[in-house]
Amino acid sequence: MRWSRAFIPTLKEDPQEAEAISHKLMVRAGLIRRLTAGAYTYLPMGYKVLRKAKEIIRQEMNSSGATELLMPALQPPELWKKTGRYDVIGDVMIKFKDRHGKEIALGPTHEEVITNIISKEVRSYKDLPLILYQIQNKFRDELRPRFGVVRSCEFTMKDAYSFDVDAEAMEKSYKAMYDAYCRIFERCGLPYIAVEADSGLMGGTGSHEFMVPSEIGEDQIIICSACGYAASTEVAAIGEPEGTLENSAKTDKMEEVNTPGVRTVEEVSDFLKAKKKDLIKTLIYVTGDEVVAVLLRGDHEANEAKIKNHLKVDAIELATEDKVKETTGGPMGFSGPIGLKVRIIADNAVKVMTYAIVGANKQDTHLRNIDPGKDFSVNEWADLRTISECDVCPKCGGNIEIKQAIEIGHTFKLGTKYTKPLNATFLDEKGKEQDIVMGCYGIGVNRILASLIENSYDENGIIWPVSFSPCDVVIVPVKKSDKELWSEAVRIYKELTRDGVDVLLDDREKSPGVKFKDADLVGFPVQIVIGKKSLAEGKIEVKIRATGEKQLIDKNDVVDHIKKTINNG
Amino acid sequence: MRWSRAFIPTLKEDPQEAEAISHKLMVRAGLIRRLTAGAYTYLPMGYKVLRKAKEIIRQEMNSSGATELLMPALQPPELWKKTGRYDVIGDVMIKFKDRHGKEIALGPTHEEVITNIISKEVRSYKDLPLILYQIQNKFRDELRPRFGVVRSCEFTMKDAYSFDVDAEAMEKSYKAMYDAYCRIFERCGLPYIAVEADSGLMGGTGSHEFMVPSEIGEDQIIICSACGYAASTEVAAIGEPEGTLENSAKTDKMEEVNTPGVRTVEEVSDFLKAKKKDLIKTLIYVTGDEVVAVLLRGDHEANEAKIKNHLKVDAIELATEDKVKETTGGPMGFSGPIGLKVRIIADNAVKVMTYAIVGANKQDTHLRNIDPGKDFSVNEWADLRTISECDVCPKCGGNIEIKQAIEIGHTFKLGTKYTKPLNATFLDEKGKEQDIVMGCYGIGVNRILASLIENSYDENGIIWPVSFSPCDVVIVPVKKSDKELWSEAVRIYKELTRDGVDVLLDDREKSPGVKFKDADLVGFPVQIVIGKKSLAEGKIEVKIRATGEKQLIDKNDVVDHIKKTINNG
Repeated sequence: MRWSRAFIPTLKEDPQEAEAISHKLMVRAGLIRRLTAGAYTYLPMGYKVLRKAKEIIRQEMNSSGATELLMPALQPPELWKKTGRYDVIGDVMIKFKDRHGKEIALGPTHEEVITNIISKEVRSYKDLPLILYQIQNKFRDELRPRFGVVRSCEFTMKDAYSFDVDAEAMEKSYKAMYDAYCRIFERCGLPYIAVEADSGLMGGTGSHEFMVPSEIGEDQIIICSACGYAASTEVAAIGEPEGTLENSAKTDKMEEVNTPGVRTVEEVSDFLKAKKKDLIKTLIYVTGDEVVAVLLRGDHEANEAKIKNHLKVDAIELATEDKVKETTGGPMGFSGPIGLKVRIIADNAVKVMTYAIVGANKQDTHLRNIDPGKDFSVNEWADLRTISECDVCPKCGGNIEIKQAIEIGHTFKLGTKYTKPLNATFLDEKGKEQDIVMGCYGIGVNRILASLIENSYDENGIIWPVSFSPCDVVIVPVKKSDKELWSEAVRIYKELTRDGVDVLLDDREKSPGVKFKDADLVGFPVQIVIGKKSLAEGKIEVKIRATGEKQLIDKNDVVDHIKKTINNG
Repeated sequence: MRWSRAFIPTLKEDPQEAEAISHKLMVRAGLIRRLTAGAYTYLPMGYKVLRKAKEIIRQEMNSSGATELLMPALQPPELWKKTGRYDVIGDVMIKFKDRHGKEIALGPTHEEVITNIISKEVRSYKDLPLILYQIQNKFRDELRPRFGVVRSCEFTMKDAYSFDVDAEAMEKSYKAMYDAYCRIFERCGLPYIAVEADSGLMGGTGSHEFMVPSEIGEDQIIICSACGYAASTEVAAIGEPEGTLENSAKTDKMEEVNTPGVRTVEEVSDFLKAKKKDLIKTLIYVTGDEVVAVLLRGDHEANEAKIKNHLKVDAIELATEDKVKETTGGPMGFSGPIGLKVRIIADNAVKVMTYAIVGANKQDTHLRNIDPGKDFSVNEWADLRTISECDVCPKCGGNIEIKQAIEIGHTFKLGTKYTKPLNATFLDEKGKEQDIVMGCYGIGVNRILASLIENSYDENGIIWPVSFSPCDVVIVPVKKSDKELWSEAVRIYKELTRDGVDVLLDDREKSPGVKFKDADLVGFPVQIVIGKKSLAEGKIEVKIRATGEKQLIDKNDVVDHIKKTINNG
């Protein structure tokens, strides 16, 4: 491929709209261009890398017993109504009316569609297990598209779905997919971590996220430095506290204090000269028709995933001002557990608190010197908060670290959440109808590129591993108009191409400086520089992008040398 | 691949909704399933064939100097407003409002998007020529989705775009694409015909369609049996007539006749006992603010593509009843050229008519014995009608045949139709700004499959050429539970797979009859049948799907025999 025909519009400056390193470099290196909010064109070099990622995924999926198909992006919303997800997904799902007035959706994911197909085609236990997958473009109307291809409205996803006769068989399919994911991300050269995760909107009985630590990651994971345990902060369990918590605001007996206009934990602790951990915060949640009070220590964060799982519901919402008033008798910001008539669930950490400060369910009033269990009772104690670096590893008690991470893959044990409402059943060996047990498995293909770049660049540009680079080698004749340099460049280009190496020949009439900079920016792993002086001595310069190492190679050996270098990765 | 995991849900009966052979067979053979109107899932066997078509296209595009990229389906409609196509395309383009209220379109094609990209990235004549292409899913809200994947609302298209410094350079890119198309369709084994075509909505200065003759084709082409000339009936030129036309309704002088309620050519000729070709029909067309009368011989069909090209406009419409009245003074069905105040253009065939019958622009009245040129005058004579089998070849005068055909590809010389409104310019060698000259080139990838099947099937199912079959070979052990048969099947399966042959092993516990029927239906080119009796004699049956030919091969030679058979196609 010749540079002049390859359409690689590099930029000298960082694009204004980009915050993330990967986003900046993908634009500057001519890999992508923004068309409209959250929609990117993959220019030729970017698309070559995307196709390499797809091919690695395809190979590993096929070799683990999955079979590829392709479902349409156009979907009937009725299927989403049957599974109850139509309302839950809300505005994220793009919908329009066709010319006959029929509502059509653009697929944000395909659980409903594949289960619908399976419900019509699978009859017997003999038809199972099945693992089907596709590599296809998804559409989501994101509130805030961000970081280029990391969070966009149209993106390429590999989504796989397993169908089994029972939970035990599903575990086998799940393991096959989990192992395939590990192989895929290893081959992609990504420093990934598989963590326990929450099932969220997908539902089901278990889930793992595949995470690449990165500053621009929108998720948080904990990693234990002692035992290596890793989990999403959404699910990482927190052990029960021991002993009792000494309280800096300790007084002798329960006391009402005037706290005019003081509502938040921050404000109350400042005003009463107490610590945040001396407060119990009372959050009023609504789920369906039920109102629940959730108690947390003042310095802890509520974990809505854990709260939902504890309550066994799909969705919870913080109560409105009116609902708080109706429930507690007092305004928002002054809620407390004493005298509440609703179900009270409290985080385990509250159990050991003494002489705590709580809202009085009354305007501008708090209570101090409150003992949980003595001054109010709790319906259930549970782990309801998000882990922090002050906590210890739930597995070994070691120190944990919290990191931002990009989610590149997610696997779910769905059970019968989709097969039951969509009637995907089979006849077992005794002729009895059973629900099919399902798993689903997603990879954000575009995020593989961004995560790779976030982890592999320097001040000059991207550094691609050989397995992922848009081309293996770039040949840079220092001056195109010099016939000797040019004909040597063409010779090497032809010989390498003949031997199956993917070579880009820089045939532009640009200064050597521009060509070197562009080669570094796009990040080809090997650069062949053909210069006047070295060629006069029968030598050609070979530069390794990752290390900057330069070697002068005899021109007759250069083709073999390059092939060896590439094969060694 | 094992049949039981490959998800090939075959059907015994034709699906009710299918009319076309290809549609019926694609559903019955388990290649596709309908999800919603005009949207189909490609099941694993169907998707394998689709990917083979894509791969052939990709190879030929790359080897002819085109570079692949990928544009989003989500498009900003503003670009369509700039080129004036927003209104012209109308409801076919799917549009919706995103959560911020911004209108977004789903790409029915990508001329606007690619030209927008080029306008920002190309600066100099040194950046040209460029040929860029993508293989991507298009969305069109079709009024009548038909024939399965032949006319659907979501479909896979290969769309390529060339950018050149001038028309002469564009001709070179055009030829490279034209030649690539010929190679692609030849490799696909399609009996295609490249014909001169109308540019239609695309605009530009020249166009070819690549057609596969088929009963279900929605287009018509002419083919000359003498010189082989082929063209779309929309553009096939018709020579000027010689001599004069004898008129069966001849009378001595112009005469008004009462024709109560008699409006159509059919009705008038019946009523007056004349032939249709004795009538001149007068069609009133509106284009923008202009009203034009178009005259045609009664038995001829107006060709709106030719009329639009003659008028040099993008769109024309037949006048409404009110507009006809306003223009002619008489009701619809009684229009005639005499006394008309608007521009009159007439088809060449009208020139030699004598003693013709025309409408009198008066309720229930016609005129007979009218001579064009004498009794009324015509502003312009032109070729305005659609060719019929009564006409002769415009190139050699030989006999022509008209066939229905499926359009599988279309190439356009666009000129500056898109580059001018979207400011895609370059600086020429003298530093002067010039408009880029453009071409575009589409292939309907899904239609390749349907066209192939329409041309290659028998009463038992599809007959795939080796280059296109979802698998090269299917192995059918007559009885799975017979350990000897099964282990021989597995041996051959493993050896062929090891040698790179794509093999499907029928591991189902079904009757031999069902397995043979399914193998024929899906249409694998080679079938290996492992039966008790022949295996006892050390033989294995090899059946060629296309010919039905069966051979008994020594079991030790069968792997080599199969590899040879496949390599010979």
